[in-house]
Amino acid sequence: MNSRRNSFPFLNKYSSISDILGDHELASLGDAFVNLIYSLALSKAAGRPVGRKLDSRVLSSALRKAGLRSLLPHRMDRHKLADAAEALIVYGWLSGVISLEEALNMVSREGDLSDNICSLLKLVWERVGLALRGY
Amino acid sequence: MNSRRNSFPFLNKYSSISDILGDHELASLGDAFVNLIYSLALSKAAGRPVGRKLDSRVLSSALRKAGLRSLLPHRMDRHKLADAAEALIVYGWLSGVISLEEALNMVSREGDLSDNICSLLKLVWERVGLALRGY
Repeated sequence: MNSRRNSFPFLNKYSSISDILGDHELASLGDAFVNLIYSLALSKAAGRPVGRKLDSRVLSSALRKAGLRSLLPHRMDRHKLADAAEALIVYGWLSGVISLEEALNMVSREGDLSDNICSLLKLVWERVGLALRGY
Repeated sequence: MNSRRNSFPFLNKYSSISDILGDHELASLGDAFVNLIYSLALSKAAGRPVGRKLDSRVLSSALRKAGLRSLLPHRMDRHKLADAAEALIVYGWLSGVISLEEALNMVSREGDLSDNICSLLKLVWERVGLALRGY
């Protein structure tokens, strides 16, 4: 898949999943990516264009279900947990381990939205983990 | 380029540039796309991740400079003009006449941001116009 490391050399500064999850600036960029994916998924389902922000409850719940909560410090509120999820998802896309289409297809699946985001987080976690370890 | 018409059959309902520019729902989805492109351009320039919304002043000014204002009704405020720009840009991406990378490269150019968005709007307008006329 298409890595954007040449355009975004800051991707090389992260050496662990915890680094990625805890980066607030990355979360801020991730917010824009996740809102686009979510809006596209809603548009696909509705058969008309929709633009909407994904609620932090859904993201924080997905992060917990994916088993990523333990990689983060204690005493983080829901918004910080949602930030962590957004940071990991956009890192996965920018580093090329997942395409926009694949992310969209996962979020668009039938069933519970936070379960879908959980699956996306687990997939990105696995692939980013392998890439960080140099496989 | 990769058209998303199969996933988003509503793309087929637009028969003119004015149809696209005037669609508020499409503008809402376009807002998510444009904010991602803008945030990526800022991240590329800053060498660190940035997430930010593009100001409606920049978008409405770009729309006027591109010569698209005359295709819209009178008495539209700045926010409605910005909406029109966002609608056209996301239509261009979804219909496959411009890729995310090409849009990002245009917005990332040196120089005035609203001039860059103006160039992007003119390019999408030209290509969408050709596609709508069946060339």
